[in-house]
Amino acid sequence: MRAKLRRHFIVPHGTSHTERRQRVEHFPNGKKVVIVGGGFGGLSVARALSGLPIDITLVDRQNHHCFQPLLYQVATAVVSPADIAWPIRGILRRQRNVRVLMAEVTGVDVATKTVQTDSVSLPYDYLVLATGATHSYFGHDEWAEYAQGLKTIANATEIRGRLLLAFEHAELVSDEAKRRALLTFVIVGGGPTGVEMAGAIAEVALHALPNDFRDIDPRSARILLIEAGPRLLPSFPEKLSDYAKNTLEKMGVTVMTSSRVTNCDAAGVTVDGEKIEASTVIWGAGVIASPAAKWIGAEHDPAGRVKVEADLSVPGHQEIFAIGDTAAILGRKGQPVPGIAPAAKQMGFYVGKLIADELNGKPRPKPFVYHHQGDLATIGTHSAVVKLNLDHLTLTGFFGWLFWSVAHIYFLIGIRNSFVVAISWIYGIFTSRRGARIIALPDHVRSAKQADVT
Amino acid sequence: MRAKLRRHFIVPHGTSHTERRQRVEHFPNGKKVVIVGGGFGGLSVARALSGLPIDITLVDRQNHHCFQPLLYQVATAVVSPADIAWPIRGILRRQRNVRVLMAEVTGVDVATKTVQTDSVSLPYDYLVLATGATHSYFGHDEWAEYAQGLKTIANATEIRGRLLLAFEHAELVSDEAKRRALLTFVIVGGGPTGVEMAGAIAEVALHALPNDFRDIDPRSARILLIEAGPRLLPSFPEKLSDYAKNTLEKMGVTVMTSSRVTNCDAAGVTVDGEKIEASTVIWGAGVIASPAAKWIGAEHDPAGRVKVEADLSVPGHQEIFAIGDTAAILGRKGQPVPGIAPAAKQMGFYVGKLIADELNGKPRPKPFVYHHQGDLATIGTHSAVVKLNLDHLTLTGFFGWLFWSVAHIYFLIGIRNSFVVAISWIYGIFTSRRGARIIALPDHVRSAKQADVT
Repeated sequence: MRAKLRRHFIVPHGTSHTERRQRVEHFPNGKKVVIVGGGFGGLSVARALSGLPIDITLVDRQNHHCFQPLLYQVATAVVSPADIAWPIRGILRRQRNVRVLMAEVTGVDVATKTVQTDSVSLPYDYLVLATGATHSYFGHDEWAEYAQGLKTIANATEIRGRLLLAFEHAELVSDEAKRRALLTFVIVGGGPTGVEMAGAIAEVALHALPNDFRDIDPRSARILLIEAGPRLLPSFPEKLSDYAKNTLEKMGVTVMTSSRVTNCDAAGVTVDGEKIEASTVIWGAGVIASPAAKWIGAEHDPAGRVKVEADLSVPGHQEIFAIGDTAAILGRKGQPVPGIAPAAKQMGFYVGKLIADELNGKPRPKPFVYHHQGDLATIGTHSAVVKLNLDHLTLTGFFGWLFWSVAHIYFLIGIRNSFVVAISWIYGIFTSRRGARIIALPDHVRSAKQADVT
Repeated sequence: MRAKLRRHFIVPHGTSHTERRQRVEHFPNGKKVVIVGGGFGGLSVARALSGLPIDITLVDRQNHHCFQPLLYQVATAVVSPADIAWPIRGILRRQRNVRVLMAEVTGVDVATKTVQTDSVSLPYDYLVLATGATHSYFGHDEWAEYAQGLKTIANATEIRGRLLLAFEHAELVSDEAKRRALLTFVIVGGGPTGVEMAGAIAEVALHALPNDFRDIDPRSARILLIEAGPRLLPSFPEKLSDYAKNTLEKMGVTVMTSSRVTNCDAAGVTVDGEKIEASTVIWGAGVIASPAAKWIGAEHDPAGRVKVEADLSVPGHQEIFAIGDTAAILGRKGQPVPGIAPAAKQMGFYVGKLIADELNGKPRPKPFVYHHQGDLATIGTHSAVVKLNLDHLTLTGFFGWLFWSVAHIYFLIGIRNSFVVAISWIYGIFTSRRGARIIALPDHVRSAKQADVT
């Protein structure tokens, strides 16, 4: 079936443009599936619908899929953006029933079943909302300017630029207090993102930079990891939280648990009333879903996630689904399904299969069940904490890191379908060169900060 | 001598910050050399002064040295910025008599011998201006908005974004004329930059993208290379110009020689009175030196380059030198020294040695003599034209490309001092994956263009 379809769509080289257009036209009478978002969830839906005589459109405002679990490595100059992000249309190039569009969705007309974008309108029979989440400042949106979140490639290069600029400016100032503020890095939120960022920044300061400066000692940098709850990595077993805390402290990170950030401004952060001067603040504390719930007028939880039915459809709309970070749903034990890549993939494949089955006249399958495979977080380059569901196995340190690497290689091959590419990529990451130390900030950011230090 | 110096400067791990500062203080009584610019010229000056008991400051407004001959590969998504750019302080980390500062030079006070920057002031005994050149629009600065030049990493990622967006937007529009304009790429200037960009864009359209789109055929893109003079690559022998033209035409590039661009605007370009609608215009036609001549009030040629003495010093200022693209000087046969990397390196080493000799009480050496080693330009991935001075040897096609590769590997090892790194880099380049297809433009650029196509 699939091979047949493939033959149908392959266009011989030298075909004229008009001819080609007709040939690659989607099944005009096929059902129209619109997928909004090219993350782990959206891609999985498309994959699950591979080979069917339907007309799939995947729309994303970016041209690339970003491998978010490794964003912190872009933010700390380990790898380049292109090492962890790939054009969505490149990933789906062989799946000829999908068309990829780069456009910003502005709304959904559920009555006429049409997705509106800033350029084209897309009619649908099925709509899958896989639009992800962004960082949330718990109602303090004014903190966004000072505390950078880490959700996109642009966020990551922004953090990378600020981080490197802080050291550059510290080398220029003579005032000791200013220098101390420039060399203070605050990470808010002790989840995996916060732990990974703190470890990676510590390694930049301890290993990557020391010989590069003359006046400052990058090793004197203060790195503060601030968590409001009683321990780091709350989703992990307690002993792994302790392990992470100890490992980070050995690396020179100051871990502050049960500490609440009450303010962020140009000078730094306020923690439980105490001011900490810091030029660089990174936000890993909260997320909020995209406005997808508003587009369709659906009920949502406080984090903006659509409250979906057991089959991930939106109440009252059998033809609309929300998946990944866009969906609020509970797991088997009544705990919320976490906003991580494996959950998004599982939901994506489930919805893809559901649509395929329904198109083949089969009834809707059993409710979606989330299988939690485990939790993992790296601490620096060669250590990690891993908790597997399997027999409640936990791994720490080097063995944890080894597992983390293998899991990510496996995951990556899933996306890129190429072992060779995965190897070359993994080589780049694990030689742990800090090769990507490029400051490429917009001029106004650079100048404004520059002016501060004079 | 050098080993002794090294010992003097090495700081044991665990030294306190204050102690460390004192230890790495530059020879306070040593002569002060300020180098402005971390390009090929500036780095060569620093290298030539290695090991001397002097106080060198290299100041650049960027934190990175950019390997400009390969910028076109960033612009066409072959490699990432970090593959061809490295932190200047990383390159010079072992040379302990150099301090690197990231700051923007705003002027020079020749009376008090001080360089002013936007943050610190730098007194000097010797000043070397190695500030390079930027693109020039022959008095039509208003063209800059529409015709992007290619001199910095930021320029290259801007071109990459526009190039990829043009294909994305072409996939979205239904109007045939608009689509044709979106798929028309104009390169102004038939020198090495123009030839390399035209070849690389042709390969993107012919090989990298065709299977990724459904509605458009990227192979139908029009690529126009426009040169005002009678032939491409005017600095090469005529038969190589012909070879380049033929090779490009076989790749589908339209080469227009003896054609003058008389206007650039949002709609495209005007060539000898005829309008050509094009959404992407790349400027490789002219360069102008940085404002260094104005800083010191020196006489300069129409391209802004300082007219220097035979020893590259500035007339009336034995202690100020201009090198690379900042200097206007004639070669042995009376022809101007070209603005290429080998020339900048030769001048840099010459001036570095001159300063070192003078500090050792020796008289100034013989005038600078430029040794032209040859010219080379790639055409696509596996072809190049090469003209060597040696016996007037020329190479074309695959052998030319092989020579080009070896020359660049050699050059690169010179900068990075690491064979292993060079190999991993070369691997990335020559697997010629178009891995770096990330659109990362500021929002206003994206939206503005987006709006155009609706």
